[in-house]
Amino acid sequence: MNFPSKLIEDAVTEISRLPGIGKKTALRLALHLLKQKEAVTESLSQSITKMRTEIKYCSVCHNISDTEVCGICTSMRRDKSTICVVEEIPDVLAIENTSQYNGLYHVLGGVISPIQGIGPDELKIDSLINRVAKVSSGDKVDEVILALPATMEGDTTSFYITRKLKEYGVKVSTIARGIPIGGELEYTDEVTLGRSILTRVNYSAD
Amino acid sequence: MNFPSKLIEDAVTEISRLPGIGKKTALRLALHLLKQKEAVTESLSQSITKMRTEIKYCSVCHNISDTEVCGICTSMRRDKSTICVVEEIPDVLAIENTSQYNGLYHVLGGVISPIQGIGPDELKIDSLINRVAKVSSGDKVDEVILALPATMEGDTTSFYITRKLKEYGVKVSTIARGIPIGGELEYTDEVTLGRSILTRVNYSAD
Repeated sequence: MNFPSKLIEDAVTEISRLPGIGKKTALRLALHLLKQKEAVTESLSQSITKMRTEIKYCSVCHNISDTEVCGICTSMRRDKSTICVVEEIPDVLAIENTSQYNGLYHVLGGVISPIQGIGPDELKIDSLINRVAKVSSGDKVDEVILALPATMEGDTTSFYITRKLKEYGVKVSTIARGIPIGGELEYTDEVTLGRSILTRVNYSAD
Repeated sequence: MNFPSKLIEDAVTEISRLPGIGKKTALRLALHLLKQKEAVTESLSQSITKMRTEIKYCSVCHNISDTEVCGICTSMRRDKSTICVVEEIPDVLAIENTSQYNGLYHVLGGVISPIQGIGPDELKIDSLINRVAKVSSGDKVDEVILALPATMEGDTTSFYITRKLKEYGVKVSTIARGIPIGGELEYTDEVTLGRSILTRVNYSAD
């Protein structure tokens, strides 16, 4: 594509570096910004620069935060005896949006992947073990819920963490895998369907 | 959606103001930027700010330009006797990409639309008439090609321009409407099909 202006071309190149945005969409966005007041572009560029330079990560759970320790970790209304371990920050947002969980989180920042050269030391696993081991603070951790992806890497990471946590006598659980609610048996992949039969849940009243 | 950080929330709000980008996509883009080096966000925000504040519009054809008069208007290799009139800047890019046109352009900046309160004075129509009227410069305009949208507003604008140009004895043409190449007769709307029969082209050798 030939651009009539180097300025447009540079902007389109930069915008199209974003994931899922091609040259055509980038051009559409650039021309949209040109039609708006200068203040629109100004506040867009300021907000992303500010976010990138000033963002902090919670020193306890490694979630994004505006403060040293995040709002979830400091909240008095959260159950501090449960930690849910997730791979990335969006996972925390997804679980929070369900309103079904009231414990704390721990963001690993990835999963163990020998192929990509990611070992346990690259992840926040030691930091998790320290949180569980630190009994003195009064907030004893009773349960660690592993909410990692159902992939080879995710399972490896879950296994590694489970073994590491063994000596602390803490309960380790994992989120349920199975047919999504509203999902059709017929269209579910065999692995999920097979596992949902093996890990069936008692239906009778306890 | 609850965000763990005000900085993220502000960035997501600003990004989701862009057309076709919702909150979820905006969040994905923001988290993507957070994972990249600071320089990536820096050059993105700089390039859009620079584009918005430094962009110029060609004083002749009103296309975007880095200079007072754009590269197409100043080029020695373009046919200066033909002007193609388009609604918006992307239309110029679209026609340029066909490599089938070697004349000049004129960007109106819209079409006449009484409903939206856009009259001839809001558009660059006078500027077009002046270009055609200005015979003294040596670059006499022989033909004006109207490449405006095939809508009520586009047709009104075409009609208005044609009438205004009458006294200058310039040839006025409009781009062909018809069945797209590769299109099926069966699936073409009646208006297009009807018009393509009325405006049929002689197939015999001239």
